[in-house]
Amino acid sequence: MKRITFSLVAIGALAGVAAFTSASGSASKEASPIYGVTIPSGYRDWQLIAVKQLHFAGMGEQLRAQVGNDIAMKAYKEGTRPFPDGAIIAAMHWTRVPSEDNDNVLDVPFPGTHSFVIGFPVNVQFMVKDSEKYAATGGWGFADFTNGKPGDKALHETCFPCHQTAKDRDFVFTDYAATP
Amino acid sequence: MKRITFSLVAIGALAGVAAFTSASGSASKEASPIYGVTIPSGYRDWQLIAVKQLHFAGMGEQLRAQVGNDIAMKAYKEGTRPFPDGAIIAAMHWTRVPSEDNDNVLDVPFPGTHSFVIGFPVNVQFMVKDSEKYAATGGWGFADFTNGKPGDKALHETCFPCHQTAKDRDFVFTDYAATP
Repeated sequence: MKRITFSLVAIGALAGVAAFTSASGSASKEASPIYGVTIPSGYRDWQLIAVKQLHFAGMGEQLRAQVGNDIAMKAYKEGTRPFPDGAIIAAMHWTRVPSEDNDNVLDVPFPGTHSFVIGFPVNVQFMVKDSEKYAATGGWGFADFTNGKPGDKALHETCFPCHQTAKDRDFVFTDYAATP
Repeated sequence: MKRITFSLVAIGALAGVAAFTSASGSASKEASPIYGVTIPSGYRDWQLIAVKQLHFAGMGEQLRAQVGNDIAMKAYKEGTRPFPDGAIIAAMHWTRVPSEDNDNVLDVPFPGTHSFVIGFPVNVQFMVKDSEKYAATGGWGFADFTNGKPGDKALHETCFPCHQTAKDRDFVFTDYAATP
């Protein structure tokens, strides 16, 4: 599934795409191919798992946040693996842009220091745990939405092979971020 | 307040400090000097406002997430400014480290691409809105905790001057991240 994101981002970066409208965080009627996963209602309000940054060689940067529904978060906090049925993890991906406002503040105490913030939304991905329905793919159903629309079948065929490399962690790449 | 964080991070980076224990997200009895702000219970579970990345020239990197309590999130979503009394914003700061796991997956479709994840917790900062109590500082009380302990008075004296540069945004630097 990660591979899908990278492709979309690469295309976006190369084409100079600078605006994606919002998927609004509410339920979409359109389901991902293969898995039939729709956008879960209210996912934008779920609890935070962790954040990440991605540097695409020569192609751009991303800031990312992973959030989980109540079942997923309970499993994260209690260290339960595999994740129980009903767990859903969402990964929100944004472009990364410099923040002139922040840099102006930072430059006094720390010359040459730079701050980066979210630019625009790129895509959102979901993993839905249903050990019976998705038995052939580690118990997970996958979905990748750009601008509220699911990617095509070919795109979704790459999800599981990529996540298979995290088989020892129930196919999930992201760890829970400890509290500072 | 940002200046404080930078100082702490700089000290941590220079001294090679590699471990901070958790503040646990539950209420601490210790309050910040000047403002008397304690760690709000359960803040780690609050809704996500946005994420950021910080590059300190020659000194290290941070990944950051801002979360808000219900009052703050309602104001963010409805565009209410100034924030109403009772709004609390928390900023969690972590070190940033490369992810070999992710890079191994990424390297096939995108050679030279790199992924970064959270290393260890650095500090957490809070802004608490009380327009009467904190009238002298834009209606905000500030707090900076490292390892569950508030920083000293000198540290907290730098909070407001820094945030004053964002006076036109009710002294808050972070915007709400639109849904991908």
